[in-house]
Amino acid sequence: MGNRQTDIIRAAAKVFKAKGYHAATIQDIADEVGLLKGSLYHYVASKDELLYLVVKDPIRRVYRRLEKIADGKGSAREKITRAIAVHLEAFDAHYPHLFVYVREMENLHARLKDKIAESPKHYERLWHRILREGMKAGELRDDLDPKAVTFGILGALNWMYKWYEQNGRLSIREVAAVFARTFLDGLSMAAARSSAKGA
Amino acid sequence: MGNRQTDIIRAAAKVFKAKGYHAATIQDIADEVGLLKGSLYHYVASKDELLYLVVKDPIRRVYRRLEKIADGKGSAREKITRAIAVHLEAFDAHYPHLFVYVREMENLHARLKDKIAESPKHYERLWHRILREGMKAGELRDDLDPKAVTFGILGALNWMYKWYEQNGRLSIREVAAVFARTFLDGLSMAAARSSAKGA
Repeated sequence: MGNRQTDIIRAAAKVFKAKGYHAATIQDIADEVGLLKGSLYHYVASKDELLYLVVKDPIRRVYRRLEKIADGKGSAREKITRAIAVHLEAFDAHYPHLFVYVREMENLHARLKDKIAESPKHYERLWHRILREGMKAGELRDDLDPKAVTFGILGALNWMYKWYEQNGRLSIREVAAVFARTFLDGLSMAAARSSAKGA
Repeated sequence: MGNRQTDIIRAAAKVFKAKGYHAATIQDIADEVGLLKGSLYHYVASKDELLYLVVKDPIRRVYRRLEKIADGKGSAREKITRAIAVHLEAFDAHYPHLFVYVREMENLHARLKDKIAESPKHYERLWHRILREGMKAGELRDDLDPKAVTFGILGALNWMYKWYEQNGRLSIREVAAVFARTFLDGLSMAAARSSAKGA
């Protein structure tokens, strides 16, 4: 049963990405995996459950990695660089699963809230903590609201689902480097000093 | 008919935001505006058309303002500051209409592509142009890919639809200021020099 379920999850991810979650039907997924619709219901109860199964493991892995980074050693600047890389590499490695997740996040959490252990709030809080600790330690400018900065970074990263293509012009590492440099330089102490001078 | 249609559009925006576009029904909107469902169809043909009507004017206005900024006078840094403010103030002024638009953009463009004059690509290109011109003029660092930077900025701005609340802790101007400082400082020539030194 394990392998068949894996096949179904993979087929579901492909169909969700191609058609959109709402337009995709259980019939489409059954066709993709080469099963009768009735047989597919032997493995999964609903389209919602399928969406959950599509994203569950990759999301859990990204959360665990961010927790490790936040709790681990290293400067805030190193943590931000690593956290950006982890987030974007997950998009790439679990393409299109995480693509589907970011787009459907609201629907998913509304419908399956009892089943989903990972909350976006927890992920935000880990980022927020890294930023606040960096500000306190004098590594990052402290004249900007850390929550707004958190959302700015997460926005830049998550927006990838709109435009990123595997094998496109820029590799995921190149994109991660652009974002890391923009944000690290924008949040540097030197930046705060030059902003203050300009003001 | 004009006023009644305006009432319907306003009711649709409210219902779409509360229930999500997919869960909302024409019946919900008819109830909200105090019309029979059959009468509502006298004014609009479909839920898709309603979504289009909800966002059409505010989107057009933001595009026109960004065109003016891109074509107008001023440094790239001034243009970026103004463009961030225009984008975020539109979220605030047309709350929740633009909220609905960003969330439903793909569905909307897929279904109504013949009707919609404004294309997100055009908006991206205007941003891209402002950044490239600033890089050429020596106002902005030119060691970062301008397209990736464009998407980073647009991601930070558009992600607002996930977290922004009117009358929340931060005003829209405060958020705009955080983003403008982060990005302008991150894209400054000084930032490029210090990145180069660090590398």
